[in-house]
Amino acid sequence: MTATLKIFVDHLSQPARALSLLCRAINAPHHEKHIQLLKGKDASNARGKEAEVAVGGEHLRKPFTDINPFKKIPVVQDGDIVLLESCAGLRFIASKYDASGVWYPGKVEVRSKVDEYLDWQHLNTRAHGMGYFRNKVLMPSLKKCEPDMAVVREHEKELQRVERQFARYFLGPTPFITGDQVTIGDLLAACEFEQPLAGGYNLSPPIREFITRVKEKVGPDYDEVHTYMRQLAKKCLA
Amino acid sequence: MTATLKIFVDHLSQPARALSLLCRAINAPHHEKHIQLLKGKDASNARGKEAEVAVGGEHLRKPFTDINPFKKIPVVQDGDIVLLESCAGLRFIASKYDASGVWYPGKVEVRSKVDEYLDWQHLNTRAHGMGYFRNKVLMPSLKKCEPDMAVVREHEKELQRVERQFARYFLGPTPFITGDQVTIGDLLAACEFEQPLAGGYNLSPPIREFITRVKEKVGPDYDEVHTYMRQLAKKCLA
Repeated sequence: MTATLKIFVDHLSQPARALSLLCRAINAPHHEKHIQLLKGKDASNARGKEAEVAVGGEHLRKPFTDINPFKKIPVVQDGDIVLLESCAGLRFIASKYDASGVWYPGKVEVRSKVDEYLDWQHLNTRAHGMGYFRNKVLMPSLKKCEPDMAVVREHEKELQRVERQFARYFLGPTPFITGDQVTIGDLLAACEFEQPLAGGYNLSPPIREFITRVKEKVGPDYDEVHTYMRQLAKKCLA
Repeated sequence: MTATLKIFVDHLSQPARALSLLCRAINAPHHEKHIQLLKGKDASNARGKEAEVAVGGEHLRKPFTDINPFKKIPVVQDGDIVLLESCAGLRFIASKYDASGVWYPGKVEVRSKVDEYLDWQHLNTRAHGMGYFRNKVLMPSLKKCEPDMAVVREHEKELQRVERQFARYFLGPTPFITGDQVTIGDLLAACEFEQPLAGGYNLSPPIREFITRVKEKVGPDYDEVHTYMRQLAKKCLA
């Protein structure tokens, strides 16, 4: 079967990693196209104006902007279908390519709990996981300046709330969001929590244990897909 | 048929109006429970400390916080299912109660374009429609102060971008997001754009025409459900 499915990703991005891992976990025939957010530069070595430019990667230029005029990754393309939003991409790939029906369940009552997390995370896990990493790790390294610790602490405080709400409300007593089965909601959550963790944020035990459970379901690809981001964070913080 | 479906709403809220209108449009047997965000106070008449308190409505207190510990409306409840996110609620109600399959199409390729809008709107239509209304209309009226016009103008600028991107990318040459059929994506978009419009924002002709098309699909309920918010905005701005 010739793959018609393409995903445009950079493994620095949390939802991009979730898309890569989903395709691998369900053995969806696909092409992974790498769009370098940092233009392949080592962010920790960039200087001055070069550092500013380095933030403007391949996602800001043609030919990628012909695919996504909003200049963001990840993007999912499958024949005529182009999806510029990662949650829509996760839903689409799981619906079309996951024969097991596990990752995005068909039963509306179960699926709606996955949807609830995917909707909630935009202003919660994502906003503050990204905000923390960007302000604590990435921008100080690119701009060679100290992090604005007031901003970092605000994201830390919000991340603590996010962790509590995720553990209490979304997981409750079960290993994953919908119960015993891992879904695209769990996968995206784990990929998001990995970002502040790599940036030095002290994740609580329930969330660390949750990540371990997701990792076990995904297999060795999990760490492989996270390696680039973890190494970059380490260099930036050095 | 006894309705098991309950929606907890205040028609001041954009996604709450979308949920009410969806239930009515598809004749879903349901109970609409009103949770007053402004505690039934006339925001334009509240003064000083009372005005501050007025912002803390029924959504912040028991018994509602037993249903939603996140203290937000709307909420969808159907038997054992509770959904605290409005997009998940719209998907659930359309999937379960819309026999026509029009509002949230089953075909994955079509549905994914609805999902793409529902995911995109969080940080776009919603963030800036709400930001504009809150900063231009609601908070100045409740706090008896002048709006911070720098903040209002920032939301205005972003709303102009949102309008362009919605018209060009999400609609393109077709009347609705997926083509000729109205969906929950269009309904939510129209309800969001109504908010800055009521607050004095000058919506562009393509978006005004889009709203008219959604209104025609929904019928007289559309204006009825929007009346409270429009009247409140008028009073606040008087």
